[in-house]
Order: sequence, then structure tokens, then C-alpha cells
Amino acid sequence: MHSFAEAASLFEKHLGEIQLFDKEPNNLYEPCRYLLEAGGKRVRPALCLMSHELFSEWEDDGFNAAVALELFHNFTLIHDDIMDKAPLRRNQQTVHTKYGITTGILSGDVMNIYAYQQLSKINSNALKQILPLFNQTAIEVCEGQQWDFEFELKDEITLSEYLKMIELKTSVLIAVSLYIGAIIGGANEKEASALYAFGKNLGIAFQLKDDYLDVFGEQGLIGKQLGGDIVARKKTILYVQYMALAGNNDSLPKLKDIFTEERPDLVKRVTDLFREVEVDKAVLNRVGQYSNEALGFLDALELSDKKTEPLRDLFLQLMHRKS
Amino acid sequence: MHSFAEAASLFEKHLGEIQLFDKEPNNLYEPCRYLLEAGGKRVRPALCLMSHELFSEWEDDGFNAAVALELFHNFTLIHDDIMDKAPLRRNQQTVHTKYGITTGILSGDVMNIYAYQQLSKINSNALKQILPLFNQTAIEVCEGQQWDFEFELKDEITLSEYLKMIELKTSVLIAVSLYIGAIIGGANEKEASALYAFGKNLGIAFQLKDDYLDVFGEQGLIGKQLGGDIVARKKTILYVQYMALAGNNDSLPKLKDIFTEERPDLVKRVTDLFREVEVDKAVLNRVGQYSNEALGFLDALELSDKKTEPLRDLFLQLMHRKS
Repeated sequence: MHSFAEAASLFEKHLGEIQLFDKEPNNLYEPCRYLLEAGGKRVRPALCLMSHELFSEWEDDGFNAAVALELFHNFTLIHDDIMDKAPLRRNQQTVHTKYGITTGILSGDVMNIYAYQQLSKINSNALKQILPLFNQTAIEVCEGQQWDFEFELKDEITLSEYLKMIELKTSVLIAVSLYIGAIIGGANEKEASALYAFGKNLGIAFQLKDDYLDVFGEQGLIGKQLGGDIVARKKTILYVQYMALAGNNDSLPKLKDIFTEERPDLVKRVTDLFREVEVDKAVLNRVGQYSNEALGFLDALELSDKKTEPLRDLFLQLMHRKS
Repeated sequence: MHSFAEAASLFEKHLGEIQLFDKEPNNLYEPCRYLLEAGGKRVRPALCLMSHELFSEWEDDGFNAAVALELFHNFTLIHDDIMDKAPLRRNQQTVHTKYGITTGILSGDVMNIYAYQQLSKINSNALKQILPLFNQTAIEVCEGQQWDFEFELKDEITLSEYLKMIELKTSVLIAVSLYIGAIIGGANEKEASALYAFGKNLGIAFQLKDDYLDVFGEQGLIGKQLGGDIVARKKTILYVQYMALAGNNDSLPKLKDIFTEERPDLVKRVTDLFREVEVDKAVLNRVGQYSNEALGFLDALELSDKKTEPLRDLFLQLMHRKS
């Protein structure tokens, strides 16, 4: 069995070899290469391959699906960055900052279609099972992005609304990566669905932990200033959890009021408020719940520990990280 | 056999019944409904259904494919209008003008994915044949849009470059609509390919005729001022054909120079120049060539005249129109 790092690295090699965007018109495809070659963690393709390997040795279709998943993810990054007006991605300029919005839209579009082109290479039987769920997932990712966009303009967001948004925007693509890998590996529907559920819960836990570490991580380890999300006035799980805990307590200030202020101690002030109502503990509890839920689905698979070890290692690595 | 008008109208009815975008988040889907419900000629879905009917009575898959083709086309309209900064489409505000660029990008994206969702409903055997060519076509449409975009910034374009651009941007989607309908109807690869070739040539002829009529149509019939493309300084086939005919004749002015001038007689001046070097005749000749080519592929099908009559009628209607 291959570890996450090995799967990601083999995928990287494959992606380099197929030279997908080495063609004309160069102005359309150069931006695609620019983003893809800047790296990224290759989480989705690696998970697809790891899930595949739970059931059989790797076949070409596993790599075709892995490429499709990574292309779809990168397409969403290009378009999200336009919508979010983000200047940087993977330590370099975002596609639309470097090449312009028109090119960003069109290069994103073509990358989305190339994702389907790669999927269409998969043999018919697996494809018939995979394609509807991939489409459903792709639709959900767009819906998640729309909710995220709307939440940024809204004052009141409930915890369940927020968690649903994360699920759509982030988790379902992680989940479907595991599902697709399993189907290609020869898993039955029940096994593939268990891996989907594992991935969905893992994805949510991962995203919540990410938000948690941005404020409560260890300064020396995280490699950037703590509280970046606070400075950016982002509505993370910490923000929404604070609203839920402090909502009825009139002696506690509203975060939206604090966010309108320009103050040098903003990060400290908000972090103190989070601690005061124990947002940190509540979010860590939630991470624990989703993690246990995830592991439960992995256990239910009745595969040998040897087989599931790489996924469990990855799980521990993601959940116990301090940065 | 159904005429084009009947096929288009039945498609319209089907589209209304399936209520594809009647869901949440409303801000994502309302723009999709807004554009789709504004109408349009439904050329692609109607051609798909007509091609289907050449080989068998209509089945659900024909309508699924027809919806997919119309959705893909509408997705490209939303994104193209953003890129072209177009204010109007189908006599109403463009999606991004009404709802903003962010919504335009995301609603276009989700509509593209819904096109694939509709395609994925098609039974496996046909889907395996259809999907790769649909993907190839979708990629070509993006490439065509990129070339079009680049040509607008370029001084010199050859006729063959320009014709290739039209082929990619417009004709291949017309062609693949006929191909897909044929496959779903039970045609063999040879028959479907002949219809593809018919559609490709028809599509190019149609586009060239469109450009021709914008300048040389009959004022009373065309419903708008003649020469709109000239006023907009668009590089149509007339422009490129003029460049090809006048290229080596130094006594003739360069269109790009005239296009930089603000003059009240711009349309007349350019139209006279077109007539002087017989651009009108050259373009009409070209339309005739592509039309004959198209008809040749229809003849080669060896289907009864009764069967192909609706396609021939449509062909005559498109080619002999004066507006």
C-alpha cells in the first residue's frame, strides 16, 4: 500500500508526463499550466488513488479519474479567485491577476471541460456509476461557493447553515474522490458510499481545524501571523460559533461591530472574546465529532488494518497537526 | 417528420416542464432561468431532435441530449457576454449586467455542469460514443472564443485563420448536435459523421451569411440599421475578405485605419470599399461553396427525400433569407 505522500508524488509524475495543456492557443492553455504546475497538495487525486488501492492494484482509469478531480478543483480555484478578488494562490499571482479576468474565465472553463474529458476515458461500467455523482458534486461545489458568497454579505448565519456551506464547498469533492477511486478499484456501492461518508466527515473536520489553527495554532509552527482570518474579517466557523454562543448574551459585543473598527489590537481582542465564551473548545469538540464519525465509516468497511493504514495515517496527520 | 419549427417548439415545451433551475440557492439559479426563459431560436436542440428523427421515433434520451446542448450553448453565452462586455442579449440585459460578474461566472459554471448532468442520463452505449466528441467540441468552442478574442486585438488575420475560428466557435456545436441526435436515433458512425459534416458546413455558411446580411441585407427586412458590425468595428468575414482582396493594392485604404476614424459616413465608406473589391460577391461565393458541401453530405446519407425534407427546408430557409 502506498502512503499519501507516495500517491501524491506518483500522481505528480503522471500529470507531468501527459502534458495536457501543451497546445495552442497558447494564451488559453498557458494559464492552465501556470496554475497546475505551481503544485498544491494534490489531496483529491491522492485520495482517489489511495481509495482505489484499497480494492485493487492501480489501473489507468484510476489516474484518469485522479487527473479529472485535480482539474475540476483547479478550475474552481481560478474562478473562485476571480470572484474573491484574491491576489495570491500557491505563493504566486492568481491566474486572473497575471493574465486578466477574461483569460481567467475562459481558461477555467476549458479546464472544467478537460476534467470531463479525462473522466470520459474511464471504462463504461464504472463511468455510468461515477458520472452522475461527479455531476451532483460539481453542482454542490458551485452551490457552496454561492452560499459562501452570500454569507459574507449577511449578518446572521446559523451553525447548521455554515456547516452545510462547508460541506458543499469543500467536503463533497474530497468525498467523491474517495468514492470514484473505490468504484474504479472494484468496490461495491456500499463500500464506495462508506468511503464517501468517511471523506465527507474528514473534509468538514479538516476545514474546521484549519479555521481553528488560524487563530489558535502555534505561532512558531504555522508559518504566518496568527489571526489572518480575523484581519480579513472572514466569517469562519469561529465567527459563527461565537455568534451561536454569545448570541443571547447582551453583555458580549457583536463581532460584526468589532469588525467595522480599525484597531491595532483587533486580533487579540477577538481572540480573547473567542476564549471568553470557549469558542476554541466548542470548535475542537466539533472537529472531534466529525473525526469520530469519519473513522466509524472507515472501520465499518471491514478491510484489514494493513490496507486502511495509509488512510488512517493521513487522518492522524491531518487531525493532530498544529499548523 | 417534424419541421424545425415543430421540433423547436416541442423542445421549448419540454424545457418548461422539467423546471431544471427551480431550486435554491435562488441567487445562483435565477440568472439561469432568466436567460433560458428569454428564448432564443433553439437551433441546437431542434437540430438534435431532427437528426434523431431521421433514424427513429423520439426517445427520452433525445430530449436529454437536446437540453444538454442548449444548456452548454447558454453557458457559453453568459461567459462570452462577460468577456465581450455585451450589454444586451435576446432583447434584455445580459446576465452579468443584471446580476453582476461574480454571479455571471458562477451561474455559467453551474449551467455547464448541468449540461453534463443531462448528458449523463443517456443510456451507456450511446453515451460512450457521444461523450468524447461532446468534450472535444466543448474544448473547441473555448478555443474558438480565445482565437476570436485574439483576432480582435490583431491587425493581420488570414482567411483560413478566420474560417477556422468560426468553425470552432460556432459550427462544431451545430455539427455535434446533429451527430448526437443521430447516434441516439440509432445511426451508425458513418451516418452520424455525415450529419456532423453537414452541420459543420451549414454552420459556417450560416455565420458567413449572417455577416454578409449585416451589411448587404435589405434594410426594410433586417429589422435594424445596416452595418452594425462596421459601427462596432467588428472583424467579420467581410473585413477579412477585404484584407485578402485589397492586401497588395496600395491604392486601397486599410480598414484598420478607417476604423480608427470617427466619421458620420463610416458605414457607407466601408460598404463602398467592400463593393469596390467585390467582397460581397466573394463572400456569397464562399457561402455557396459551404452550402453545396453541406448538401453533399446530406445526399450521401441515402435516406428518403421525405425523411430529409425538414432539414432541406431549414437549409433553404437559412440560405435564402434576406434578413
